[in-house]
Amino acid sequence: MSDSAPGTFRYHRTVEVRFRDLDPMGHAHHSLALIYFDVAGRADLTSIDYILAEIVIRYHARTHFPDTLDVAIRATKVGGKSFELEYEVRSGTGELLISGKTVQVMYDYSASASKVIPDDIRERIATYEG
Amino acid sequence: MSDSAPGTFRYHRTVEVRFRDLDPMGHAHHSLALIYFDVAGRADLTSIDYILAEIVIRYHARTHFPDTLDVAIRATKVGGKSFELEYEVRSGTGELLISGKTVQVMYDYSASASKVIPDDIRERIATYEG
Amino acid sequence: MSDSAPGTFRYHRTVEVRFRDLDPMGHAHHSLALIYFDVAGRADLTSIDYILAEIVIRYHARTHFPDTLDVAIRATKVGGKSFELEYEVRSGTGELLISGKTVQVMYDYSASASKVIPDDIRERIATYEG
Amino acid sequence: MSDSAPGTFRYHRTVEVRFRDLDPMGHAHHSLALIYFDVAGRADLTSIDYILAEIVIRYHARTHFPDTLDVAIRATKVGGKSFELEYEVRSGTGELLISGKTVQVMYDYSASASKVIPDDIRERIATYEG
Repeated sequence: MSDSAPGTFRYHRTVEVRFRDLDPMGHAHHSLALIYFDVAGRADLTSIDYILAEIVIRYHARTHFPDTLDVAIRATKVGGKSFELEYEVRSGTGELLISGKTVQVMYDYSASASKVIPDDIRERIATYEG
Repeated sequence: MSDSAPGTFRYHRTVEVRFRDLDPMGHAHHSLALIYFDVAGRADLTSIDYILAEIVIRYHARTHFPDTLDVAIRATKVGGKSFELEYEVRSGTGELLISGKTVQVMYDYSASASKVIPDDIRERIATYEG
Repeated sequence: MSDSAPGTFRYHRTVEVRFRDLDPMGHAHHSLALIYFDVAGRADLTSIDYILAEIVIRYHARTHFPDTLDVAIRATKVGGKSFELEYEVRSGTGELLISGKTVQVMYDYSASASKVIPDDIRERIATYEG
Repeated sequence: MSDSAPGTFRYHRTVEVRFRDLDPMGHAHHSLALIYFDVAGRADLTSIDYILAEIVIRYHARTHFPDTLDVAIRATKVGGKSFELEYEVRSGTGELLISGKTVQVMYDYSASASKVIPDDIRERIATYEG
């Protein structure tokens, strides 16, 4: 995932590194990766009833402050009941800092069970595809 | 508030400083004060319909990692529609690190207006008094 | 401080509310106030050797997600050894959400004692004044 | 990794879920996984010069508040220049909530290059093994 060209992600958002993101080493704490991924995906996908099943994160370089990060996101696999999102976080100068993917499983909260991805959601997810 | 003897607070909880609480200076970021206060008050008071109106925080010494803090809390004023809580955060060795107070206003969410503190709540708040 | 007209603050920054800022009530947790204040002041003032002595925060309205906040800051008092900063956080529509002030004391870390504000720092602080 | 019996981890720590860990869904935000892992490993391993290269997290069940979590950690692979740590986070009742692993690469900050794990570090890591 680290070798994707920046151009292959159609969906991008920016996020400002905050002073509070830093840890005693002076770089963004590694847990911030998941908050930066969030920034990219949340506003459009929160209304979807999924649960987060798995996350993989790779750290390529330290995240500094201050900086305006570019967070790119795309849907790479849309299965029957689950879908995968892939992320790349780059510094203001374009350096790849963090990459990762998340696996989401559609979930019926009333039935407490996974469920098939409905067609309209399938379409909404597809807007993240390249 | 900084000159209160530790013994005057009847209600105490402990909270572990986390590595993630630290900022680049190597001490707990000052916003953690409000999370440490939270630790003391939340579990018992969250079901109360209040809004937080004002907070005062005084920093006496740096909060280090690792440490187990003592967070003390007491109700100092219980008015008609509002009540005040006072806090002291001490290090494992008893040094006063942070003190503060919060002013809460009872709130009727359905009417979007402040309201008089009901008697049962008044009693629950009183359990924090010295 | 809540009655200041927006125009009286010369120094403004914007900060994006993050999904992670929210608490179970669906609004930014009250500790975020200090992180939003930070956003405004840090980049220019971190190199100054001060310690944070006191903070006052007033909550006027809930902070929602998503939103782009305006954080305004000004120096209100510059004393011999300390200075005060005042903050206002407004929603994207201009509603006052949070106001506050912080009291900073100049500190000589090598001598472990407060110290007089040097002239060049005094000038840098003055850039925040209205 | 999710099928490990609890008994196979020799090293355990507890961490209190904080109110601030929660997100609008009322469960700990998924980024907290990395802070809970941290709690287990940091105090003993921070002085080791490594960089975090990769993280895998699996979410098995929601983390509730209040709760006292058990965080278990063990070293699963110790290679020439890198080592892997495995984690399990369980609720107070013993339910598996989160599992994961982190890959650390030894790093010589002065030379800006990865380096071979020294023998004393190799031993310290080994204390996490089952």
